[in-house]
Amino acid sequence: MSNYGFKLKEYENRLEKAQSLMHLNQIDILLITSEQFMRYFTGFSTQFWQSPTRPWYLIIPIKGLPKAVIPDIGLSAMQKTWIKEIYTWPSPRPKDEGISLISKLMNEFPSKFNYVGAELGKEMSLRMPLTDFFFLQSTLSRKIIDASSILWELRLIKSNAEIDKIKHICKIASNSFENLPSLINKGDSERDIAKKMKMDLISQGADSIPYLPVISGVGGVSQIIYEPTNRVLKSGDILFVDTGSTYDGYFCDFDRNYSIGKASKIVNDIYEILWVATQNAIEGARPGLFLSDLWKLMANSLNKYLPNNFNKGRFGHSFGLQLTEPPSITFDNDMKLALNMVLTIEPSVEFKPGKMLVHEENIEITETGARYLSPKADKELSII
Amino acid sequence: MSNYGFKLKEYENRLEKAQSLMHLNQIDILLITSEQFMRYFTGFSTQFWQSPTRPWYLIIPIKGLPKAVIPDIGLSAMQKTWIKEIYTWPSPRPKDEGISLISKLMNEFPSKFNYVGAELGKEMSLRMPLTDFFFLQSTLSRKIIDASSILWELRLIKSNAEIDKIKHICKIASNSFENLPSLINKGDSERDIAKKMKMDLISQGADSIPYLPVISGVGGVSQIIYEPTNRVLKSGDILFVDTGSTYDGYFCDFDRNYSIGKASKIVNDIYEILWVATQNAIEGARPGLFLSDLWKLMANSLNKYLPNNFNKGRFGHSFGLQLTEPPSITFDNDMKLALNMVLTIEPSVEFKPGKMLVHEENIEITETGARYLSPKADKELSII
Repeated sequence: MSNYGFKLKEYENRLEKAQSLMHLNQIDILLITSEQFMRYFTGFSTQFWQSPTRPWYLIIPIKGLPKAVIPDIGLSAMQKTWIKEIYTWPSPRPKDEGISLISKLMNEFPSKFNYVGAELGKEMSLRMPLTDFFFLQSTLSRKIIDASSILWELRLIKSNAEIDKIKHICKIASNSFENLPSLINKGDSERDIAKKMKMDLISQGADSIPYLPVISGVGGVSQIIYEPTNRVLKSGDILFVDTGSTYDGYFCDFDRNYSIGKASKIVNDIYEILWVATQNAIEGARPGLFLSDLWKLMANSLNKYLPNNFNKGRFGHSFGLQLTEPPSITFDNDMKLALNMVLTIEPSVEFKPGKMLVHEENIEITETGARYLSPKADKELSII
Repeated sequence: MSNYGFKLKEYENRLEKAQSLMHLNQIDILLITSEQFMRYFTGFSTQFWQSPTRPWYLIIPIKGLPKAVIPDIGLSAMQKTWIKEIYTWPSPRPKDEGISLISKLMNEFPSKFNYVGAELGKEMSLRMPLTDFFFLQSTLSRKIIDASSILWELRLIKSNAEIDKIKHICKIASNSFENLPSLINKGDSERDIAKKMKMDLISQGADSIPYLPVISGVGGVSQIIYEPTNRVLKSGDILFVDTGSTYDGYFCDFDRNYSIGKASKIVNDIYEILWVATQNAIEGARPGLFLSDLWKLMANSLNKYLPNNFNKGRFGHSFGLQLTEPPSITFDNDMKLALNMVLTIEPSVEFKPGKMLVHEENIEITETGARYLSPKADKELSII
């Protein structure tokens, strides 16, 4: 069982790591705008990000404590975090949504390297209006540059406390995946099944279910991302259910496949081939292994049974405060696995046009190898 | 009861309106990156936006049909929409996440006005890496300018089909608000109550619950946005529950207040003062009224009982595909109410330091006035 929140030391460690990377990269100030990095540094936890009216800012100086610069509606909520320096403006105020305030605070800060780092790069977007961003830059004595490599490096290696939360949500999702066959009735549509799965996930203790594709198709699925439809399941279908549910802000991300009635030989074979490829990757994963080599463990395993007949895209990725985070497990990724990285292992095969299976497990990298975070799926396809 | 999806005509109308605004504003192409505008124009419906790895683009030319430019993982899903021209790239491909493809497609399009409009302005953010945005601009023959005023104008006036969906989710939320007192047990914490409310909302037919603050405090709440905590409710507390739940992509956004046991005189009085202010605004709302005058209807009503002792910020806003959308009901907003606008009416009072009440209803503007979308709350505070 995991508890909500982190000890103060967790946030102090994150800040210290950030400031040491800022030194290395010659950045005076980090400007944070996104839900996930705001939460990472402060613990601030709200669903109010759903409202695009108001931007929220965190300024992390190369030395000293972070300053929150936020709409006045957030003051009392931000005071619940470890952040002590909180500046607010009366928002909405379309003519100046906090820009003069963050500009002044950043310009007051003594300059060493002359750069502000921000969320400008890969796998992220800046959570503020671009017109405000351009205006802000015009008022600053420093240049705003891309800090995505620093920011992703911080979130790449999880603390043990973070992994506990991920393990907890993986267990919750696994319980719901196990319950699912007993919840499905004859005549249920994808939407009915999604509804039952959502209720079960929440009853098991998930806080939210931001991602839950429930997709069916005769002997395989044609895609894995679209919303559930009114399609009623029937014998011979594959039911694919994937979930990114959360506990205390942290995601799981793994799927399960079910056959409605007995599956055909080819479907059973493909399922087992994917299961074996997943298993091979997890057995081979260890600190120091290149991600490209982890990809090859799966590719070689699939290639043995399905020569040149599999998806050559990514076979997994990291995750944590988001459903997907860098790095990707791709054929050309020269990053190395390291202790306390968290990954999805996710090989897929389109074995006929429009017929696809995807298997997925979640792991953490330990000193001696990989450890399952998602309780391992059965080698045989589940039958409903 | 509302059905999922829209008729083709709905999307054709949206496109026609967009293209006519593009003419007026001298924009050749709209570049769409966000979940909500992508859904608005195409009907594309996925939770895959949770993954920040891949950007998604829609190009709307001033004449002709929209072109989707998307990661290959989305092809089969996008083919379910009315969009026929779909271009893909194998993603993730960090060195070129679709940029060369959209750049080529936009440069091929014959120029009339020399501008591309994009989501650069108020109450929106661009859902792509900024480094990609800068590179894209450098490859284009046209200048990318802010199209936020056009884009928000499109979503400001809802179609009847959109209002049906909003009415449907308002009814679902209202049912759950009515059920809530019977679900709460002695010893329940805010988190317990949030869990029960989520399960009830889903069982009533909500697709998702992106926003559900459940906040308690002795005789009032100190804030209205933070995540639920382990605080156990006790006699004398106010329980504030707000929800932005969705049906087929459309939000409701209204709250309810409950008193645990009998409330004090001041709490009952304040609740009634807010209820009356809400009622006054809804009775006075009609096409042609300035938003500032709608604000004044509430302000004057509050002022009668609480001279100069109320929040002078915004008293409501529009909503639809997002929890909050422009415009804001503020003292200085000179926009006029118009037919088929959808609004929250949301006055609030902090009657003692750290003690606040907020009342909220949802309305649509009809030819003759305003109509409740959220079934109207009782004039007396509910007791649990």
